[in-house]
Amino acid sequence: MAKKTDTAKTSSRTVDAKISARIKERDAKTLGRVVTFADEVTTRALKGAEPKLEIPTRSRSNTIWNKKRRILEMGDATSERQLFNLNQAKQFMQTCLHSSSIKSLIEAEKTLSLRGMFYKGLHTVAGTKGEKTFADQDESDGILEDLEVAMAALREELHIYAKKRGTMVGNITIVDSGDEIDCRRMGSGGYAIPSICEPDVIQFKKCDAKFVLHVEKDTVWGRFNEDRFWEKHNCILTEGSGQPTRGVRRLLRRLNEELGLPIYCLLDCDPWGHYIYSVIKQGSISLAFESERLAIPEAKFLGVRSKDYRACELSDDVKIDLNDNDIKRAKEIMNYPWFMGDRGWQREIQGLLDNGFKMEVESLITKDISYVTEEYVPQRLKDKDWLE
Amino acid sequence: MAKKTDTAKTSSRTVDAKISARIKERDAKTLGRVVTFADEVTTRALKGAEPKLEIPTRSRSNTIWNKKRRILEMGDATSERQLFNLNQAKQFMQTCLHSSSIKSLIEAEKTLSLRGMFYKGLHTVAGTKGEKTFADQDESDGILEDLEVAMAALREELHIYAKKRGTMVGNITIVDSGDEIDCRRMGSGGYAIPSICEPDVIQFKKCDAKFVLHVEKDTVWGRFNEDRFWEKHNCILTEGSGQPTRGVRRLLRRLNEELGLPIYCLLDCDPWGHYIYSVIKQGSISLAFESERLAIPEAKFLGVRSKDYRACELSDDVKIDLNDNDIKRAKEIMNYPWFMGDRGWQREIQGLLDNGFKMEVESLITKDISYVTEEYVPQRLKDKDWLE
Repeated sequence: MAKKTDTAKTSSRTVDAKISARIKERDAKTLGRVVTFADEVTTRALKGAEPKLEIPTRSRSNTIWNKKRRILEMGDATSERQLFNLNQAKQFMQTCLHSSSIKSLIEAEKTLSLRGMFYKGLHTVAGTKGEKTFADQDESDGILEDLEVAMAALREELHIYAKKRGTMVGNITIVDSGDEIDCRRMGSGGYAIPSICEPDVIQFKKCDAKFVLHVEKDTVWGRFNEDRFWEKHNCILTEGSGQPTRGVRRLLRRLNEELGLPIYCLLDCDPWGHYIYSVIKQGSISLAFESERLAIPEAKFLGVRSKDYRACELSDDVKIDLNDNDIKRAKEIMNYPWFMGDRGWQREIQGLLDNGFKMEVESLITKDISYVTEEYVPQRLKDKDWLE
Repeated sequence: MAKKTDTAKTSSRTVDAKISARIKERDAKTLGRVVTFADEVTTRALKGAEPKLEIPTRSRSNTIWNKKRRILEMGDATSERQLFNLNQAKQFMQTCLHSSSIKSLIEAEKTLSLRGMFYKGLHTVAGTKGEKTFADQDESDGILEDLEVAMAALREELHIYAKKRGTMVGNITIVDSGDEIDCRRMGSGGYAIPSICEPDVIQFKKCDAKFVLHVEKDTVWGRFNEDRFWEKHNCILTEGSGQPTRGVRRLLRRLNEELGLPIYCLLDCDPWGHYIYSVIKQGSISLAFESERLAIPEAKFLGVRSKDYRACELSDDVKIDLNDNDIKRAKEIMNYPWFMGDRGWQREIQGLLDNGFKMEVESLITKDISYVTEEYVPQRLKDKDWLE
């Protein structure tokens, strides 16, 4: 979400000319890529060659761990999509259809949800007996991921958004679509982080915060906000309601990169918590291309740690037994390249396996309601006791 | 989330004395109920009678449809929980345990999540071989619902919150925990609606809006916000990310009751959409007690309607076949007392069954990206074409 069209002109708000210019610049660039992409097809066709598209391969085998840059990258493998190939013709047409929708979206200065894109592209193919352009939304979403990598443009740059989740409060003022939002005065509810957090939508203004504390669950975030942790410790407080959306990850990355703020993550001591951290840090294997602008290699894992059962003198009540799937996942994560070379992480995951139980952040409540905000996190920060 | 404790004193913000007084008044009342509840047990015990608790029955059979008030109400049936009864002793103790936690929460001026309450009450019962106070969170949640009805106090008044979901923008200024929030300047993200929306947390200030448009999904909300629908049509725009939380329902109810704003709902044309509307309107059968302060009998169902396939000249692409479960659910909802006496609703649900397919709000995108914001909803409002 971003641009003001005619509404803005009639509204009393003036749109910053610099922002408008930036919007145009970014969109012009993306539009150029869409047109180039289409041109390649027509150029071939006009030459009498068969129309085809070249799509980078989004598979695990084409994902490379760049040790130096500490991010996941996509390899060079591509695959073809030919019009005159029975197995590829449908995907060829789907790709062209969505490219065309993206072009209209950018030109209309509007954005659309993934579900909306599915409906926009959905119709019965002319001359067929009810053959649909897309069988379901999954098919549509896959093509959109192809287009992201083919055009080297994030989904957000293609004017497409997903469900939003996650909230923010803290010592920062931001501008979202021209509205100045003081995150120090967002009450108990907070600022809802949008799906598209690109620089033309969100700009950072006055920031006094020294770091970001990102917590896994909104209920834990509620505890930190109610205890006004962000005010006492001069920080920004975010939550992702589980696996953070790309919007949340992009915002965290920008806070880290542009404002130089360290990102501390407070997640459960279980394979799911470790996986969430891994995605924040390196990106997801299924879409390595996005890491370039979403991954935060410097993000820190503050807790909960497997040693905490003893270190914090917790009772047996906090133990949740690991099941077979947890054990399998823990071993997989242990072998991620970025964890494999790290002694701290090897010890941490081994500690989880040796414990034989998981622990949630909420379990710290067994000590005291505000133990997590008043003792646990402040002490860890003071001791610089975290994993990277 | 609500009260400022010592932090507030050291912060630069001054807490409105009237709000503080109201907090104390509400909490004093709830605290009084907790104490009375406990006193009844001790009084009996001191008299030599067996300790027991009287809990209103939360079952369908004890749910009454009050036709005149147009809300679901709880009947008078209660059940006993005795300490000296093997089948009831555990629940008796669980109830006392949570009552005690609630007392400490109110006294500490803190709130806790449902998950947090589970952990707070969790321990191994002394003298047993690892017998826990609660087997899982479900058991804990059930006891908390019992306490709500037993004390005639909403969960929110017991200082307990749930996951939050849902956002708001529009022509209104609110105050949340002392922070003034202008919902006209919330960018693309919006104000995240908290879990506790009681009057001591949220107060309404300047409101120019003439109505509330509540949409089912945040992605649809995004479309309306981007098209600045709330500005053009002078309204408030909310979404519940599916079934709205109690926080969202309480906020809508208060906007309706205290500011006299009509609530229009834009939901999918399927049994799930109808059920969401039913809960907003009358409350849920499983917790009829809450209807008293959450139900909005005047809420209106703006769409999507079963007639829209023809009326809006939609293509076959929007059709999603009803499955057996949909048909079963539709027939159940048709027989809800508040729909049974309403010809419009009988026709609507019959229309859905006759169509044999569901339609989502997003399907209107097949007409045009902004068809729903620029034509569909404005026309319905103009024609007063809705169901009640």
